[in-house]
Amino acid sequence: MKHEFHWSQYLDTNHQKFLSDFKEFLSIPSISTLPEHKEDIRRAAHWLSNKLSTCGLENVEILETDGHPVVYADWVHANNAPTVLLYGHYDVQPVDPIDTWDTPPFEPALKNGYIYARGANDMKGNVLLLIHACESYLETTGKLPVNVKFLIEGEEELMSPSLPKWLEENRGRLTCDFIANADAGQTDKRFPTIVTAVKGALGVTIDVITGPSDLHSGLAGGIVHNALHIMSELISSFHDKDTKISITGFYDDVLEPTKEERELCAQVPFNHDENIKRMFGVRDLIHEDNYTPAEVTWFRPNLAVHGLWGGFQGSGFKTIIPCEAHAKLSIRLVANQDPSDIFDKLERHIHEHIPTGVKVTVSEFGVGAKAYTLSESHPALRAADEALKSEMKAAPVHVRMGAAIPILATFKAILGVDVVTMGFGNGGNIHAPNEHQNLAMCYLGARTYARFFELLGTDGPVDH
Amino acid sequence: MKHEFHWSQYLDTNHQKFLSDFKEFLSIPSISTLPEHKEDIRRAAHWLSNKLSTCGLENVEILETDGHPVVYADWVHANNAPTVLLYGHYDVQPVDPIDTWDTPPFEPALKNGYIYARGANDMKGNVLLLIHACESYLETTGKLPVNVKFLIEGEEELMSPSLPKWLEENRGRLTCDFIANADAGQTDKRFPTIVTAVKGALGVTIDVITGPSDLHSGLAGGIVHNALHIMSELISSFHDKDTKISITGFYDDVLEPTKEERELCAQVPFNHDENIKRMFGVRDLIHEDNYTPAEVTWFRPNLAVHGLWGGFQGSGFKTIIPCEAHAKLSIRLVANQDPSDIFDKLERHIHEHIPTGVKVTVSEFGVGAKAYTLSESHPALRAADEALKSEMKAAPVHVRMGAAIPILATFKAILGVDVVTMGFGNGGNIHAPNEHQNLAMCYLGARTYARFFELLGTDGPVDH
Repeated sequence: MKHEFHWSQYLDTNHQKFLSDFKEFLSIPSISTLPEHKEDIRRAAHWLSNKLSTCGLENVEILETDGHPVVYADWVHANNAPTVLLYGHYDVQPVDPIDTWDTPPFEPALKNGYIYARGANDMKGNVLLLIHACESYLETTGKLPVNVKFLIEGEEELMSPSLPKWLEENRGRLTCDFIANADAGQTDKRFPTIVTAVKGALGVTIDVITGPSDLHSGLAGGIVHNALHIMSELISSFHDKDTKISITGFYDDVLEPTKEERELCAQVPFNHDENIKRMFGVRDLIHEDNYTPAEVTWFRPNLAVHGLWGGFQGSGFKTIIPCEAHAKLSIRLVANQDPSDIFDKLERHIHEHIPTGVKVTVSEFGVGAKAYTLSESHPALRAADEALKSEMKAAPVHVRMGAAIPILATFKAILGVDVVTMGFGNGGNIHAPNEHQNLAMCYLGARTYARFFELLGTDGPVDH
Repeated sequence: MKHEFHWSQYLDTNHQKFLSDFKEFLSIPSISTLPEHKEDIRRAAHWLSNKLSTCGLENVEILETDGHPVVYADWVHANNAPTVLLYGHYDVQPVDPIDTWDTPPFEPALKNGYIYARGANDMKGNVLLLIHACESYLETTGKLPVNVKFLIEGEEELMSPSLPKWLEENRGRLTCDFIANADAGQTDKRFPTIVTAVKGALGVTIDVITGPSDLHSGLAGGIVHNALHIMSELISSFHDKDTKISITGFYDDVLEPTKEERELCAQVPFNHDENIKRMFGVRDLIHEDNYTPAEVTWFRPNLAVHGLWGGFQGSGFKTIIPCEAHAKLSIRLVANQDPSDIFDKLERHIHEHIPTGVKVTVSEFGVGAKAYTLSESHPALRAADEALKSEMKAAPVHVRMGAAIPILATFKAILGVDVVTMGFGNGGNIHAPNEHQNLAMCYLGARTYARFFELLGTDGPVDH
């Protein structure tokens, strides 16, 4: 009991320390996708490595990749206990449209128990609570009940393009029993969640060129191709009226959910339509025929255009037939879709839908990722369930996530281990203006991970 | 013969003076649609009024409207001769995309007999050649063979929103027998042209809002409306596969061309498909079933999206479901379509094609204009034909224009007079980067207008 008293008391009495760290970390604009923030990415990595060293982690290193660096640290002196690799990312999404933020995205602001900043929810809070959980042991007893290895990357928001090669090269250093991934959230304190499946993803850019220059719409209107008309028709051609994707062969490899999986989905309280609408602040939901919105999120692939532009966007009017149109989109994949197969099918669809004489370029952005599913029988799930139940005082639910965490399938493929995804993001607006995070959930998250370590240490090595 | 010798010699020996004026005029960035160029618009008006005064025009004034000012001047001492109101505009289109200009748009550059600058072709060259034609008489004989009134406006590229009201208020000052409109071009020196019909126009902006903020596409993909998908479907819904417009009732009031009009269209040499393709630099033309591309330009209305945008347009990737999409488009109308009727039909179509729960705003930009057609029997056409034939040494053709000159129908409605449209724009890229104008055509244009004045003076008053 002395042991438990220590970490527990430490966590309950150090909220201000956590908050002060959190504000510092959030102040660094570590936007991985924008070249002008390259140095901020490095500042964030340095800040993290300092933090890890200070609280007693060992072998702390900033390790180079082909892109942004990985921050590594470990503590591996728990004999006969399992080794868990703690995964997270320190990079964040861009902040535009900047004028819709109520407070500056890199000046953390406290309001009603929430902290507002880019990265507060996705996922600097989650990274810090993992460290805080370790700190609670190392500062009180000088040791941890499990072996831990930290792998905090800087390219998750880019779909982790450099990590697979780096994992191959660093396999020796990364041996572990399983991976705990904290890049996830809690929808409702009453229903603690563990994520047992994530989608795959494929990013694509499309460029349409209809001629050498924009033309006067009075002279050329109705008789030359308009790049924006062609792009609009192309985007429309991707979906049927019921939002089903119209690309030939798109669903060939999709695993249909079982009756049991659909029942599990229906049982999750926050999967009800009204709760989903409230979460997104929208009046209506859409969904494929024969699937509820929650089932679409859990089991079905989707295609979304993230940006589209061409022609005159200034104030006033410019009467042109635009010769260029551009779009960025991504496809979220489910098991057993293969990203390169889907890219080929999409590319074929596009070429079939573009009139002759019009040039179209279809490019993959980054590296496509497969979906990942964790077996319900994985032993680490039991400790995670128990830790959540103990700290959040409610029975955990296992959910499938609509978002992609491209690296999970890669971890399984390269390191040969499974991933338990348990995160404590809670608040909202991730990838959007006014991102925010519930501070109480961070404190609960740190307690849950500390309890999880304790239970893993008690159980002995994971049988896998 | 002395008389003719004078204007003719003056024009042939003053090319450098014309060019020097032209360069000065083109250096003023009089972009009417961009608020930041408001003072440049006024500088252009001042430059013009100075020029008109210097060459002997009288009653030169910069007259205020509700928007950019009108430049007025006259010379009305030719007793028993008709009065022609010379119409033009001193405003120009925006210059973006600026990085595709080979030379800066407001630093006129000479190359192979062409002058490159925004406004060179549309229509500062045409305005100057009208003045130059008057100057050739006033500087040599001190008088003109016809009465002339100049009306040079600054809002043509905005669809002349303030001019109708100003015309109503200045009717007394503007009495005339007919109007000569120089806002047009010559496609080929071998086939001098007079424009006998222009289209009407209707500018529209569409804003689609699907929710309060962008959402993470991993969480919301496939289950909430994507503003760019909806806008793309909407734009696609405007046309059938054969480019015919799908808006209910859109063609109700369209006058079908007669057999004779279609024959005339087919006879015009530069109406052949290969010539049109060469002019626009495109590989393929499109057209409505049962109409040739030239017939589409001459007789058929069309709808063109000029700009479309929404979501993430930066470098890299941002995986959002965008909550906003925007488009600017215009419709070119033919006789007897009514702009406000067509706006209502478009608006109804849009509301019928937008899912419930999605907000859409449809706004008219400026004031819609009707199409205008000049009767083949108008007497001023005879003098114009003869002047063109005399100066360009070829038989003129009468063409119908795909572009809108919104003010022509308004002139007819408010001033009760017809409009002969004869311009000398020649070169290319109007409303586009690297706009340019053939200088030799400007000199020919000045001669043609001087000859036109002479013939009108000889014929006596126009019988209308």
